[in-house]
Amino acid sequence: MHSTIKYYPDDPWRLSEACFDPRNLNKYESIFALGNGYLGTRAATEESYLGEQRDTFIAGSFDKFGSEASELPNLADIFQLKILLNGQLLDLTSGTVTAYLRTLNLKTGELTREFVWTIGGAAYQFRFSRFVSLANRHLLGEKVQITPLTAAAQLKMTVGIDGQVTNRGTQHFNDDIKRLYPEHTLQLLTQTNTSQINFVITSSHRFDGEDSQMIDAKTAMLRRKLVSTYHLTLAAKQTLNFENISTIYTSRDNDCVYHDRQSLQQRGLDQAKALRDQTYDQLVHASAQAWLDQVWGPLPLVITSTDFRDQLALNFARYHLQIMTPAHDPRMNIGAKGLSGEGYKGHTFWDTDLFMLPYFIFTAPAVARSLVTYRYLTLPGARQKAAADGYTGAQYPWESAWITEGETASVWGATDIVTGKATKIWSGFIEQHITADVAFGVNEYIEATQDQQFAREMGTEIILDTGRFWASRLDWQGAKQRYEIRDVIGPDEYKEHANNNAFTNYMAHWNMSLALELVKKLPQTDPVLYARLDQQMNLHKLHEDLGTKLPLLYVPEPNQDEIIPQDDAYLSKQNIDLSKYLTLGTVDELFDHFSLDQINELQVTKQADVILLLYMFEDKFAKSVKQKNWDYYEPRTTHDSSLSRCTYTNFAADLGLDDKAYWYYQQARDIDLGPNMKSSDAGVHAASLAGIWLMTIFGFGGVRYLNGKLRVAPNLPAAWQRLDFYLWWHSQKLHFVEDANQVTVLNVTATANVSICANEQNYPVPTDQPLVIKRRGINE
Amino acid sequence: MHSTIKYYPDDPWRLSEACFDPRNLNKYESIFALGNGYLGTRAATEESYLGEQRDTFIAGSFDKFGSEASELPNLADIFQLKILLNGQLLDLTSGTVTAYLRTLNLKTGELTREFVWTIGGAAYQFRFSRFVSLANRHLLGEKVQITPLTAAAQLKMTVGIDGQVTNRGTQHFNDDIKRLYPEHTLQLLTQTNTSQINFVITSSHRFDGEDSQMIDAKTAMLRRKLVSTYHLTLAAKQTLNFENISTIYTSRDNDCVYHDRQSLQQRGLDQAKALRDQTYDQLVHASAQAWLDQVWGPLPLVITSTDFRDQLALNFARYHLQIMTPAHDPRMNIGAKGLSGEGYKGHTFWDTDLFMLPYFIFTAPAVARSLVTYRYLTLPGARQKAAADGYTGAQYPWESAWITEGETASVWGATDIVTGKATKIWSGFIEQHITADVAFGVNEYIEATQDQQFAREMGTEIILDTGRFWASRLDWQGAKQRYEIRDVIGPDEYKEHANNNAFTNYMAHWNMSLALELVKKLPQTDPVLYARLDQQMNLHKLHEDLGTKLPLLYVPEPNQDEIIPQDDAYLSKQNIDLSKYLTLGTVDELFDHFSLDQINELQVTKQADVILLLYMFEDKFAKSVKQKNWDYYEPRTTHDSSLSRCTYTNFAADLGLDDKAYWYYQQARDIDLGPNMKSSDAGVHAASLAGIWLMTIFGFGGVRYLNGKLRVAPNLPAAWQRLDFYLWWHSQKLHFVEDANQVTVLNVTATANVSICANEQNYPVPTDQPLVIKRRGINE
Repeated sequence: MHSTIKYYPDDPWRLSEACFDPRNLNKYESIFALGNGYLGTRAATEESYLGEQRDTFIAGSFDKFGSEASELPNLADIFQLKILLNGQLLDLTSGTVTAYLRTLNLKTGELTREFVWTIGGAAYQFRFSRFVSLANRHLLGEKVQITPLTAAAQLKMTVGIDGQVTNRGTQHFNDDIKRLYPEHTLQLLTQTNTSQINFVITSSHRFDGEDSQMIDAKTAMLRRKLVSTYHLTLAAKQTLNFENISTIYTSRDNDCVYHDRQSLQQRGLDQAKALRDQTYDQLVHASAQAWLDQVWGPLPLVITSTDFRDQLALNFARYHLQIMTPAHDPRMNIGAKGLSGEGYKGHTFWDTDLFMLPYFIFTAPAVARSLVTYRYLTLPGARQKAAADGYTGAQYPWESAWITEGETASVWGATDIVTGKATKIWSGFIEQHITADVAFGVNEYIEATQDQQFAREMGTEIILDTGRFWASRLDWQGAKQRYEIRDVIGPDEYKEHANNNAFTNYMAHWNMSLALELVKKLPQTDPVLYARLDQQMNLHKLHEDLGTKLPLLYVPEPNQDEIIPQDDAYLSKQNIDLSKYLTLGTVDELFDHFSLDQINELQVTKQADVILLLYMFEDKFAKSVKQKNWDYYEPRTTHDSSLSRCTYTNFAADLGLDDKAYWYYQQARDIDLGPNMKSSDAGVHAASLAGIWLMTIFGFGGVRYLNGKLRVAPNLPAAWQRLDFYLWWHSQKLHFVEDANQVTVLNVTATANVSICANEQNYPVPTDQPLVIKRRGINE
Repeated sequence: MHSTIKYYPDDPWRLSEACFDPRNLNKYESIFALGNGYLGTRAATEESYLGEQRDTFIAGSFDKFGSEASELPNLADIFQLKILLNGQLLDLTSGTVTAYLRTLNLKTGELTREFVWTIGGAAYQFRFSRFVSLANRHLLGEKVQITPLTAAAQLKMTVGIDGQVTNRGTQHFNDDIKRLYPEHTLQLLTQTNTSQINFVITSSHRFDGEDSQMIDAKTAMLRRKLVSTYHLTLAAKQTLNFENISTIYTSRDNDCVYHDRQSLQQRGLDQAKALRDQTYDQLVHASAQAWLDQVWGPLPLVITSTDFRDQLALNFARYHLQIMTPAHDPRMNIGAKGLSGEGYKGHTFWDTDLFMLPYFIFTAPAVARSLVTYRYLTLPGARQKAAADGYTGAQYPWESAWITEGETASVWGATDIVTGKATKIWSGFIEQHITADVAFGVNEYIEATQDQQFAREMGTEIILDTGRFWASRLDWQGAKQRYEIRDVIGPDEYKEHANNNAFTNYMAHWNMSLALELVKKLPQTDPVLYARLDQQMNLHKLHEDLGTKLPLLYVPEPNQDEIIPQDDAYLSKQNIDLSKYLTLGTVDELFDHFSLDQINELQVTKQADVILLLYMFEDKFAKSVKQKNWDYYEPRTTHDSSLSRCTYTNFAADLGLDDKAYWYYQQARDIDLGPNMKSSDAGVHAASLAGIWLMTIFGFGGVRYLNGKLRVAPNLPAAWQRLDFYLWWHSQKLHFVEDANQVTVLNVTATANVSICANEQNYPVPTDQPLVIKRRGINE
């Protein structure tokens, strides 16, 4: 086993790499990624190593190469340094490395790295720091400190802007304009091939304590790359202080008016001048202050646990949710790996709507609004996709990139071990539950925030048009005199052409019901909106359609054993012993033994599917049904999606399976943070990180919102003494403190009355003092 | 200094890397490149290292990325191996490496590499071999032998087809079809983006002595990449014998009829089946036999020298000239770096016409015919270029790629140290001497081969249409009542807007004179051809134009000091001491101190310019003029082009400056083979390698052809006792043996009478016995 992540039991804000191991490069690149939602950059080390993946992404800057799926292009790198000391290339696989420590400070967003490197009898001390600013989204900073410890040294350092990086061989950028300006300022102007987005990267290099003009510098302009090489002599114990302050601007930026190439170039130059008087330290402090002011200060979340990793995981999750989310621009959404890697090409999946959106709804409603607005902005593509498939209404793409692109799912995947061909990925064609998932998220946003403006301008249209899609999508089965939904993929993507996937059918039913309810009452509640939408989609016909079809839509009920069949065929498929594939990190072996076609014929489920259904519609199923289905599906579920375990945790908590709940919680928590040093290579698991919050607040905190009501039914694990958190509900910020005995709720905003469900009753939350709810069974 | 190339004084057919040093990766990749003119592949090591440049090129497969210049795309790699032994990645910068030896056998074209690697107490012996077949141009083979010396070992080996490689970040290929077939056969079908050439690469993996079906194998299909991972257990002392036999076919191949994708795929599969019964050893032997039959056997060239490196250099040069030259297809020509690197993008320059063509004219006339036919096939582009510039006739592009592309020169180069902008490269616009150079090469081909069919079908048209270009290109200077050629770049590319560059004016004059001569006599000698060309270009008008303008074209005569001014301004520019920049490898420093604009104002010459003129037109200038100009230009010439020194060698030999001649010879010989381990990073220097042959045969051998006559005036250096070589002349293969006393010439073909000029008289070469020419001053 490679050396694993170092934690600090007394500090849940830091995690470290305490020993350099080139096998772990990709892991740390992902989990130590920096960003601010506008840009994200993997933590590739300053010096290069084979196998590194040196990625920088700008949210929403999608480009398409040939017939490949649209993806976030890997922008030129600015952090790389080539350092020679007395002619010896800095490379930690040579010489001796001591006192190595690379640390991500989650609180400040700064990444530091220090070590002593001894080679050929000479020792050198290094300290590197870098950050991506939360105070100025265009800004990235890097600081380098090098001290020869034993004797004077000749230093040769090459640094610049390197656009020779690719997305695993795919090049999205043209080789455009390179410029060297005074004060060691370099600029690259480049453009994506197909989407023709312009990017300007400007880097200024500074030598503290040296007369910059006197530095021996030479700049080379190569293909997509310009680098300066500096020669310096350092006395023994003399420290070089070098700073590299960079900015990135693009023609998609929504914080400026002029997007032509010249204006972008000028903006980069102007900013370089404006930043000239600010040191790295000043700039990183401003960014750290923004982290405090915008993220940590307003909304502390504190877990008192015997395992310090629980709090660390929550901080880590919130850090990454912050840096991955393009909260600044509703034309963008969250990628399945955030901005931390090339996995899933930066595309948005149902991960946002069902897993990440709740986090933002409850902690940052304005960001949640931006995310659901994105779904509104992508309606044209969803309508196109429905039309292309012969349906009406809006069918959301399985994978979504730029707002105008429609479906961006890849068609070909891994090798089929039987045919030798690449496997066709059907999700983009038939994983249709996404459409109801989007409507579900939109509805939850509206219910939790009471954002009526959004509902009127965007939300209602989404819910009606997705309901309309389902009405057109149903398959009439004459023999059974009912509507079914045939040939789909449910959350269990191992089953590729399922009929009546329970999750899909229930979600479609829910979506159609809500649309029917809205279309019924809209003429009275909002005749203006009704008139607008009626013109667009004939609401009278929609009303009729939904009214006729909904009662005839088949939703799989629990059978005689109280089991809800995952789909029509599942229960009759072959059952195998999966126990050796069920622990975190073991599922890949399943595919060494079975092809996807073969797994399609087994009772093997990729991720929470029926369990997710039971969890989401908790009021629709008896407790015994829940328990029976848990017992049935748990041994058949491989959790081969990072979205799965958090649902299992929360469902187990609901069922009172406390040990199972905490075990699944730990497994889910460890997806990125655990000992598997390969699990995050292609990027962190965005929805799973939101899942850490979901498990904390929904699972153990027992908070849930259902049918417009906020419920609290704490279920703290044995290891947790206390859970202290803030949530937004109906525009009020509520402060919750839970322990084994009670929940106290304080309305911090106190500008409106809200109420809480607990112990099956409604508690109004006072605006002048905390509400205290004793745990049932504890005397008040 | 890095460890340098190992030579074998007793074997001029081998050169080795005797010590692995990652700083030398690029050097050996270039000089150990393998190929057959159809394909070329750099000798990247089996295991990967940072900084490697893993290139494979197919001649003529040009593609254009965005606005970048067309270039030879870097095709997917098949030689890379990822080897883990007991979990330890093979990486020679870790552990201990002993008995390291990588050897290129110039005679057989096989590259072998062996070493013992000791790590963690275990020692492993490796032997890798590879070749690109000269017997089957589509075939590449790799053999791997691994022996654990100390104890049994778990071997994990990943090998496949990796299309994630780029041209320094530029990706030319789409991500297309990947297939796994039985018998461990992998196939990648891919297409260039713009030129839409299809490529099919098929690799078959074989395990000798193992039951292939039983091998634990797993194949991954990634972006542009498919790789198989094999797990094996090797007993101590047990040797793994692994063979990787691959083929490449493209839709540009001229050895097959069907070029559709399916046919190409089938061809790859059929060939894999056909090759199944042949071992690596059998295949490499067939290739080695082809080397002997086609290259070394028919045309031995033997230098008897006190310095074995002279013969080695000649063998090395001939090896590379063979592997870089697409002799199989006249739609292709030779790149300035052959197929050995990305330098100059695979483009053809005047290097071919004036430096490489003579080698082929005299040693492989059919190949020379193919090269001049390429110039005929590119006439449409040359006519377009002339028309675009407002001229008539054919103006050859400075850089030439695919036959239909016309000018492909890059416009932007290195950083200007004064303005901070990329420097504009003017060659593609105004380095016009190329047009006369092409005509010169065509005429030499015709004169040396007497290939009248070529002259009639292609050559005459080229000479007339280039003459027509010059007639339209001249600038009338009313005040001086003469034609000049203003605003050009001559061979000295430091001077960017020169007027009356002597080399250009003389070459234009020569071209127009020859065209005039042809147009005069053509009505009589070939009325049919006259009629055809007259329709095309109005020969009557051409005749008139040339007749009028030629006498008025200014050609710079020697001045009062017998110096021919390189251009109108050169002699009045500032003169500086260049001595520290004149040795091989020092010239780059010049650009640390001066910008190109500044050098433009100095008497600094990049390469033989006036000297090349005096060398090419030896009968037009008095010996005193030659000596004076040598004295003048030698200290002003930096040889900042690898084309320069060979001309200096030959000119010095003509002047009797024996020490200078041998010194320049050694400097030129060492461009790729000398101690500078960085000089060949971007590829070998094609024209300089031809220059090794030119210096040997023309310079020291004293062979020259002028005005249709073959002359011999040996000038062997003191270190050479004997020079034994074969040349083709007028379809006769002549065997020359030179020593200090005499030259013997035997007509080996003996089907026609030819004569030789020596000692200023004509010697008919008998067909039944050798001609012996005593050196002047030696009594017969």
